[in-house]
Amino acid sequence: MSPTYDIDSFHAGLVEHGLIVPVGVPGAFGRGAVFEDVLERFNGLVSQVARDDGAEVYTFPPVIDRQVLEKVHYLDSFPHLCGAVHSFFGNALQALALAERANSGGDWGSLLGQTGVVLNPAACYPIYPSLAGTLPPEGRLVSMLNWVYRHEPSPEPTRMQSFRVREFVRAGTPSQVVAWRDMWLQRGLDLLGSLGLPARSDVATDPFFGRGGKILAMNQKEQKLKFEVLVPVISLDEPTAVCSFNFHQDHFGSTFGIRTVDGEVANTACLGFGLERVTMALFKTHGFDPKTWPDAVRARLWP
Amino acid sequence: MSPTYDIDSFHAGLVEHGLIVPVGVPGAFGRGAVFEDVLERFNGLVSQVARDDGAEVYTFPPVIDRQVLEKVHYLDSFPHLCGAVHSFFGNALQALALAERANSGGDWGSLLGQTGVVLNPAACYPIYPSLAGTLPPEGRLVSMLNWVYRHEPSPEPTRMQSFRVREFVRAGTPSQVVAWRDMWLQRGLDLLGSLGLPARSDVATDPFFGRGGKILAMNQKEQKLKFEVLVPVISLDEPTAVCSFNFHQDHFGSTFGIRTVDGEVANTACLGFGLERVTMALFKTHGFDPKTWPDAVRARLWP
Repeated sequence: MSPTYDIDSFHAGLVEHGLIVPVGVPGAFGRGAVFEDVLERFNGLVSQVARDDGAEVYTFPPVIDRQVLEKVHYLDSFPHLCGAVHSFFGNALQALALAERANSGGDWGSLLGQTGVVLNPAACYPIYPSLAGTLPPEGRLVSMLNWVYRHEPSPEPTRMQSFRVREFVRAGTPSQVVAWRDMWLQRGLDLLGSLGLPARSDVATDPFFGRGGKILAMNQKEQKLKFEVLVPVISLDEPTAVCSFNFHQDHFGSTFGIRTVDGEVANTACLGFGLERVTMALFKTHGFDPKTWPDAVRARLWP
Repeated sequence: MSPTYDIDSFHAGLVEHGLIVPVGVPGAFGRGAVFEDVLERFNGLVSQVARDDGAEVYTFPPVIDRQVLEKVHYLDSFPHLCGAVHSFFGNALQALALAERANSGGDWGSLLGQTGVVLNPAACYPIYPSLAGTLPPEGRLVSMLNWVYRHEPSPEPTRMQSFRVREFVRAGTPSQVVAWRDMWLQRGLDLLGSLGLPARSDVATDPFFGRGGKILAMNQKEQKLKFEVLVPVISLDEPTAVCSFNFHQDHFGSTFGIRTVDGEVANTACLGFGLERVTMALFKTHGFDPKTWPDAVRARLWP
């Protein structure tokens, strides 16, 4: 029996099997133990594939320096997706007004002020400032597992406000960076294929804001700066991006003063596995109970 | 040689040994591979200690439903610590104004509106709505590992804006809940002691806002509703709370409609290990290089 693809039954299945726990807002659900086990084991497989590459490994918190967002001009392209962190800076009387407003169901956000941090909208952002300076001849390679925020509340389970990305960032010469990106594009397809996922890659674009964004997206597509690896999860016709590859050329190198050993502005590229999305692709493809998954898939995840 | 306790040299040591990576704002640093290894292994020890308790295990994202914050009246007590998530809801012209404001170093937060999510300020909060209804006779026990946000930027490494808590929540009758809390207070001391940490427990208070907060804190202390396990990290005289135990009586039970099998409003308690703080306590106590730690400690963490 070939599976059907629709949002409601997939969401209901995830909930009924205890894989996710709905909360009052879309895209911020809890993850159950079985969901987490699959997610962590997939992340472990990524580490295994990358083990001989010698990446430096970091974890950054879900909030980052607000200035990073400003420096990369995130608000020029994705204002609708940003998550700025606001808090309370007032005195005792103002605190009383704030609490009363909140307790009466009023708008209390307008009584807050902006802090120095924002939610991290892209797993790779926090590392660039620390790459500043001259790279070693072989460039640098970094891996991270970070929580990412996008303000796009949706009932569609794979479109989350908050999710984890297993990220790799490569900085070096253009040829170092592009060769590395191309190698991982094939690795990603191989890894997902080894888990029985019908993955394919394609040129892709970012969800730039507004009409001007259409032109940015066209340029991005023409220059093949973004690729995605796609697996059907809630639609056969519009498969879900579970892995994303971005070639930034010298954008971050010039913004953060990253140079190659020859004194040129460094190029960078990143790739990220959307860990919740890969996990959901596995549940969609093989069923809601991992005990019934094909032996070859189980052998990969529970060796 | 007995160690000295001061903020600057401890921060410098963490950075020099690659354990943390400073970013442009305080309390949001990156964590290096060795730091993460210790943190994960300590978390694993907690799981081992708790393995026969039969806790349900969840992971919640760093953002939670804004209404949870409102329902528990967080802003009455801790307005200064909150982190509300704001985003952009305007049209193309307004987006242009936003980007121009951000690019010129102006205040762009006032051009945003509040979203339906807030940063999670207490690891236990997201679970209470899903405990609504009648508990089984033995009550319920939940474990989570969640990122927590507090708006308290500080150069003091153990005072972070964003950190992880390994949390346990118990819901049931008052006697079930208090017996469980008391058992974990001893377990916490034993676990930290087995890692060579000079841990002691004490009655504690939450950092309530303002003058009214002093009265709340006095009541909390008198009723012994909060305990902490403390280890010296940046001061011998004022040791750092690495584990916190809160008895909420029927506060969350009544707020979220949680009942015992007898129809009474359920009581709840929670406890959380501040994973970064425990990790820092280990580095402070045993040195910045885990290879040089005492054999007994290494045997516990790298068995």
